Amino acid sequence: MSEPHDAVEVITAKRDRGELTDSQIDWVIDAYTRGVVADEQMSALAMAILLNGMNRREIARWTRAMIASGERMDFTSLSRPTADKHSTGGVGDKITLPLAPLVAACGVAVPQLSGRGLGHTGGTLDKLESMPGWRADLANDEMLRQLEDVGAVICAAGAGLAPADKKLYALRDVTGTVEAIPLIASSIMSKKIAEGTGALVLDVKVGSGAFMKDAGSARELAETMVALGTDAGVTTVALLTNMGTPLGRTAGNALEVAESVEVLAGGGPRDVVELTLALAREMLQAADADRVDPADRLADGSAMDVWRAMIRAQGGDPDATLPTARETHVVTARESGVVTELDAMAVGLAAWRLGAGRARKEDPVQAGAGIEMHAKPGDTVTPGQPLLTLHTDEAERFERALSALDGHVVVSAEGGYEAVPLVIDRVAE
Amino acid sequence: MSEPHDAVEVITAKRDRGELTDSQIDWVIDAYTRGVVADEQMSALAMAILLNGMNRREIARWTRAMIASGERMDFTSLSRPTADKHSTGGVGDKITLPLAPLVAACGVAVPQLSGRGLGHTGGTLDKLESMPGWRADLANDEMLRQLEDVGAVICAAGAGLAPADKKLYALRDVTGTVEAIPLIASSIMSKKIAEGTGALVLDVKVGSGAFMKDAGSARELAETMVALGTDAGVTTVALLTNMGTPLGRTAGNALEVAESVEVLAGGGPRDVVELTLALAREMLQAADADRVDPADRLADGSAMDVWRAMIRAQGGDPDATLPTARETHVVTARESGVVTELDAMAVGLAAWRLGAGRARKEDPVQAGAGIEMHAKPGDTVTPGQPLLTLHTDEAERFERALSALDGHVVVSAEGGYEAVPLVIDRVAE
Repeated sequence: MSEPHDAVEVITAKRDRGELTDSQIDWVIDAYTRGVVADEQMSALAMAILLNGMNRREIARWTRAMIASGERMDFTSLSRPTADKHSTGGVGDKITLPLAPLVAACGVAVPQLSGRGLGHTGGTLDKLESMPGWRADLANDEMLRQLEDVGAVICAAGAGLAPADKKLYALRDVTGTVEAIPLIASSIMSKKIAEGTGALVLDVKVGSGAFMKDAGSARELAETMVALGTDAGVTTVALLTNMGTPLGRTAGNALEVAESVEVLAGGGPRDVVELTLALAREMLQAADADRVDPADRLADGSAMDVWRAMIRAQGGDPDATLPTARETHVVTARESGVVTELDAMAVGLAAWRLGAGRARKEDPVQAGAGIEMHAKPGDTVTPGQPLLTLHTDEAERFERALSALDGHVVVSAEGGYEAVPLVIDRVAE
Repeated sequence: MSEPHDAVEVITAKRDRGELTDSQIDWVIDAYTRGVVADEQMSALAMAILLNGMNRREIARWTRAMIASGERMDFTSLSRPTADKHSTGGVGDKITLPLAPLVAACGVAVPQLSGRGLGHTGGTLDKLESMPGWRADLANDEMLRQLEDVGAVICAAGAGLAPADKKLYALRDVTGTVEAIPLIASSIMSKKIAEGTGALVLDVKVGSGAFMKDAGSARELAETMVALGTDAGVTTVALLTNMGTPLGRTAGNALEVAESVEVLAGGGPRDVVELTLALAREMLQAADADRVDPADRLADGSAMDVWRAMIRAQGGDPDATLPTARETHVVTARESGVVTELDAMAVGLAAWRLGAGRARKEDPVQAGAGIEMHAKPGDTVTPGQPLLTLHTDEAERFERALSALDGHVVVSAEGGYEAVPLVIDRVAE
């Protein structure tokens, strides 16, 4: 078979700061999926893209080519509009759990394809899998039926969606080319667009526990993704939200499920409720279905009803007792003062070391492992007052978890904590 | 075995414009040679080096690590000093053929390890292999004996020298990472330093037929290589020479051997004689053996004597008739005027299409194929006067060769040719 381009031509074009043509982009993604473009060629191209960038047209075409490498789902047969949310990942970020049933309770279907966690941020599926019997893998027709019947589904993305992205993501992970905004944006958006959602709200995290450490690069990523969604006909909005400190009072798997259920029951930590409602309002508005106030659906128990139906539909028991870890260790305050720092990255790393996360994608996670935070930045504490409870099945993990926290949980007698808003900014076209 | 570094760490350091440490460089070259660093990781690193550069220390260490990947030759047991020459490659560049015996005739041994051609520039070994019986492959002890007995050897580099470079060069060729000055310089110099020559003269070509199209990048490459040689204890000098038009009046294999023999016989084209003498004087000076004028050794026939002994020592017959191509085609002038352009790249490409060069390294070459140039830039021609004779074994090759020349052989009634010096500059520490 004669090829319309060759890899060296495409690589050198981007290397020399040129724009890739639509034809070059279509070819290189397709040829890489077919194995005609080799890994060592794609990684050189990825590095050239990382260092020299791509413009809006190139990124849109790149995303389209990745979508074209696999199947597309279609929810237009549903009786209600669809909206989805994607978070770039944070510590204690359990928002998907209360959010999906809440939005469904407001009349918009939520087809949430999620992943498992790798590194210091937890995975939504890992959290839900702490509930015995719950299963993440659904066939496409099961997913469609649950969306119609229950209104919300949180499940694993099938292998058929954007296989080019799957191959490229694994390559970028081992070649130092993860941190390229055009590639991050097209990776996220190719899956979300192929998934077939009608509206999409992006939660782009900023801060120590986030992938993007500064607001500038987070905003660039948000703007790139909003443009991609818009160009593909998906109403897309992004919120930039703070990830300097963990969300809520738990980081872990079962610990976060319990906290999410509290929110659905009308309680829960203020920041989790605030962000859940903010994202719900954005999703409803993007789906043109904002006649209902989601706060009412939390208050009247209808969001909890959807949660219970959703868990049951995927084999779980919403009334079952959640697993707990065998060992706990409490960290207490040594002096009086105000908590001025509780660093998200440190808490994420500690939770990971306690067994809540995995180092390699084939590793298991502990359902009960994680961290409870009894005080958050701005809270006043006295000596001996518990700050954190560490949970793990293996007591020997405490030492390395504590060393991750060392210096990153700060209580100051002088105070000096300045509150930062949870939602930093909103990006829309 | 535990590794002191990992590939992503080294790649991201260079990606983020950092300097690689000696330890990172030593490890990455060694680990790549062992297969611990994968091709897709090395190509991402090569692209990051191409775009972000390396400083003098990094390039020197990179070169040293590539030398350390294989064996080093040692000529210190010889009774005379050694000097070698490397050309970055040009069209009609047969200079090695008269130069090696000439320098040997002046008392300095020349251990010339050469390569075969790929693309539009011919390979020295391809030229010599047009002589029936001549063989390029010598064992190390044969090479040493010939250097002692004859004083000059031109042969293929063994696989034992800088195997990391061999592997990296093949990778760069398919990943758009050839054009990185630090990598070009370290590739050339690792082989020359490992080869064990005492002095080295570099012929860095500039112009359309050269790898470096402009004087600025050629000078940067020359300065980088001179620094590398100097740091490794090899007296190294570079000449920047013009490659806007081919050297001499032939481009091909047997055609260039015949022209080289003319030079050794005291005749030959002026530019070939000039460059041969200029490089010979630099080699003798660098070897601290410049008491003899090489022009005398051309005139008195002693260079020819060494040539004949050198060819004979490697199985060739210096008196044998050289092979000729089966078909010829003459291009004549259509008008009167001065030849203002005879583009080196066009002639190289045409000679390649006639069968003198190869597209893939396993392809054969035609011994007799190539181009004779009857007029060079600055010459006056009249209508019907032959400009070029094209030689090939397959007449169907003429058309594509002529199309390569189209528009690149210019005869102008108004004149307008300005002579450019052959030796543009000299670079030494």
